[in-house]
Amino acid sequence: MENGNSVASTVGKAIRCKAAVCRSSGEPLVIEEIEVAPPKAGEVRIKIICTSLCHSDVTFWKLKEPHGIFPRIFGHEAVGVVESVGENVKEVKEGDMVVPVFLANCEECRDCKSKKSNICSKFPFGVVPGLPRDGTSRFRDSKGEVLHCFLSVSSFAEYTVVDITHVAKLDDRRISAEKACLLSCGVSTGVGAAWKVADVEAGSTVVIFGLGAVGLAVAEGARIRGASKIIGVDLNPQKFEIGKKFGVTDFVNPKDCLDRPITEVISEMTDGGADYCFECIGLASLMNDAFNCCRSGWGKTVILGVEMHGSPLSINCLEILRGKCITGALFGGTKAKTDIPLFAKMYLDKELHLDDFITHEVSFHDINKAFDLLIQEKSIRCIIWMDR
Amino acid sequence: MENGNSVASTVGKAIRCKAAVCRSSGEPLVIEEIEVAPPKAGEVRIKIICTSLCHSDVTFWKLKEPHGIFPRIFGHEAVGVVESVGENVKEVKEGDMVVPVFLANCEECRDCKSKKSNICSKFPFGVVPGLPRDGTSRFRDSKGEVLHCFLSVSSFAEYTVVDITHVAKLDDRRISAEKACLLSCGVSTGVGAAWKVADVEAGSTVVIFGLGAVGLAVAEGARIRGASKIIGVDLNPQKFEIGKKFGVTDFVNPKDCLDRPITEVISEMTDGGADYCFECIGLASLMNDAFNCCRSGWGKTVILGVEMHGSPLSINCLEILRGKCITGALFGGTKAKTDIPLFAKMYLDKELHLDDFITHEVSFHDINKAFDLLIQEKSIRCIIWMDR
Ligand SMILES: NC(=O)c1ccc[n+]([C@@H]2O[C@H](COP(=O)([O-])OP(=O)(O)OC[C@H]3O[C@@H](n4cnc5c(N)ncnc54)[C@H](O)[C@@H]3O)[C@@H](O)[C@H]2O)c1
Ligand SMILES: NC(=O)c1ccc[n+]([C@@H]2O[C@H](COP(=O)([O-])OP(=O)(O)OC[C@H]3O[C@@H](n4cnc5c(N)ncnc54)[C@H](O)[C@@H]3O)[C@@H](O)[C@H]2O)c1
Ligand SMILES: [Zn+2]
Ligand SMILES: [Zn+2]
Ligand SMILES: [Zn+2]
Ligand SMILES: [Zn+2]
Repeated sequence: MENGNSVASTVGKAIRCKAAVCRSSGEPLVIEEIEVAPPKAGEVRIKIICTSLCHSDVTFWKLKEPHGIFPRIFGHEAVGVVESVGENVKEVKEGDMVVPVFLANCEECRDCKSKKSNICSKFPFGVVPGLPRDGTSRFRDSKGEVLHCFLSVSSFAEYTVVDITHVAKLDDRRISAEKACLLSCGVSTGVGAAWKVADVEAGSTVVIFGLGAVGLAVAEGARIRGASKIIGVDLNPQKFEIGKKFGVTDFVNPKDCLDRPITEVISEMTDGGADYCFECIGLASLMNDAFNCCRSGWGKTVILGVEMHGSPLSINCLEILRGKCITGALFGGTKAKTDIPLFAKMYLDKELHLDDFITHEVSFHDINKAFDLLIQEKSIRCIIWMDR
Repeated sequence: MENGNSVASTVGKAIRCKAAVCRSSGEPLVIEEIEVAPPKAGEVRIKIICTSLCHSDVTFWKLKEPHGIFPRIFGHEAVGVVESVGENVKEVKEGDMVVPVFLANCEECRDCKSKKSNICSKFPFGVVPGLPRDGTSRFRDSKGEVLHCFLSVSSFAEYTVVDITHVAKLDDRRISAEKACLLSCGVSTGVGAAWKVADVEAGSTVVIFGLGAVGLAVAEGARIRGASKIIGVDLNPQKFEIGKKFGVTDFVNPKDCLDRPITEVISEMTDGGADYCFECIGLASLMNDAFNCCRSGWGKTVILGVEMHGSPLSINCLEILRGKCITGALFGGTKAKTDIPLFAKMYLDKELHLDDFITHEVSFHDINKAFDLLIQEKSIRCIIWMDR
């Protein structure tokens, strides 16, 4: 990057830099020279330090048109430094360490002010191709064509423009970039879901479908709360070893259940059904399994997975009458601006484990390796360094 | 009934009396002479004073075999007097006024002891043809053939046998039989759901799909809690007038919405979606509507309707990620033995309105009229008097 080092030279101007562009559904990303326009009012231009791959990137990368939108710059789990700010932005300034987040947190609307909600109603969540205020993108390719944004973040670029409502500031610089990066999506989603959505109490039984970063972060949250049994369900048997590091006490591989339905296996292990079930994969059939594995009377199922095929969730009406509850959350029910600094503090205080989420690191030009690793279920989180 | 007046003459013996028997799906009930065996250990034989028709009777009455089970004695909303008790029954004695309830409340299992659940796990709920302890029926017809039970109550008979775990005792005799009868199912379900399941707070917005006894009781519960807007949704325009008596402030007839989806209409009326939605009809498509009418962030949908066709509930996976919650309840999350006396007290203290739920009264031999009235949506509750 030529212009990145001297702030004076880039403020108010377009920045030419590199981005990993996705030109069509499921195709390897291509590192291209792009142009990033200056932030408009309420926006922040961020120099990305590192980013990581979350399964939601993979899900939308695979989507065929018209649902899939291309060319696009994916990436939404990242950390960076503010390069410049648009009009009316007082909250952060050049040089601040920030975590961009796909879910807005305006701190002014009824939802942001309420303890019950984290779904900002002033800047509603949507899988749209532009930035929240005017729906347009700040990216253009070398031919001047628009490159669409992804989830208001688009972190697979050396520079990106993000709305200030989508930015959490980290004042405590002791946290390293790659750990802060984890808090940008997957880990906050899992830990938050255990704490804010399910509100897991000591002694409870928890079942987690899918031990990726999200599922393992749920385990970590449940472990900290003192859950007595944390059952991980995954097709990949290697996930049990890593799961143990985050408090997973038991492991069920659906492949090994032979002809017994998973609900029967779990019911036996939990004496009639789990107190809390979490779906962290993104398949409607497993959401239904999770629901059936939670106990009558008070069992709560929390959906975190983004359904890969857009299928609806179908549940038995009589089962829901038995006092079960099903809910879901974006970003684990957490609020970017207040909860991310809190999680960072808990990490620094050695209460929250983050280190073991990082299983791989690659340099930006190897970003497609990160895709291979996640799709093959070899990585939990692969950190992609922009300047290595 | 010949032997009913002298207790000494019936204890320990079979009682011959009248019952309204359903011989096959959807057929008018026939008043027949039947035999009711004495209560076994843990059971209570009850002389029914009056009973009323709940929509769940109609749903199971319509069910075709093999799901429908015949010949059967329906009825599960009633009040009566204990005629005799089986071994080990200490809780009630001959002459006590009791309300039978379809959901067990053993007061000993983990669920009955927990504040979070009302789904007794020692005597699990099921739509089975017998009594909970041994799965058999105490009823035989004049030819000696078994008549199946319904929901552990079978109140469309002058005498019935009910498990003690399915009986609530009313010590305060000031409540009249027909008001106590309402507490046996529909009204407790609705009021309970508003208080125990949704926990409606003052100032909240509530949408109720279906203004039958259950839906109106939800309104009554929400009114008492101080909900600011209670929107009733019903195809029958006459339900608005009666709804007002129970606190319904606004009415939506889906027929009058023209081409606008109901979710859009409700969203406009509630500034983005209701805090609480209740489905009190029993159609999966309306459960989905209810879910879509509740607001992102914290909207809670409570399913009370028993799906008429056994269809599954299908919901959009992205909607559930927006922090919405869907749950359901049997008997409104209430516990028969403690909550029914409480509701009776609230009625006597003029806090809970019950009178207007009763729109019709018939004598036992006219029981089929009660079916017609409910099916034609003319009645809320029709009291069926056994001795008139
Ligand atoms: N709600 C939110 O805000 C939010 C945030 C982040 C991620 N997500 C979603 O959460 C899900 C998990 O994300 P991740 O990054 O942890 O993914 P991941 O790919 O790292 O983990 C998925 C895990 O599920 C396992 N798995 C796959 N199919 C399975 C099956 N049929 N049965 C059992 N296990 C199976 C895999 O082995 C893997 O361990 C994705 O759907 C993602 O889109 C949601
Ligand atoms: N969960 C429980 O424990 C429990 C207890 C009692 C009753 N129930 C169930 O609750 C439901 C209601 O019972 P009820 O006795 O009040 O019934 P009801 O027949 O008295 O009331 C149903 C109401 O829904 C209206 N309705 C019917 N179809 C409609 C439609 N398509 N759109 C809008 N309105 C419509 C009718 O006009 C009527 O006012 C039934 O499904 C019943 O089985 C459940
Ligand atoms: Zn993510
Ligand atoms: Zn907001
Ligand atoms: Zn009923
Ligand atoms: Zn019990």
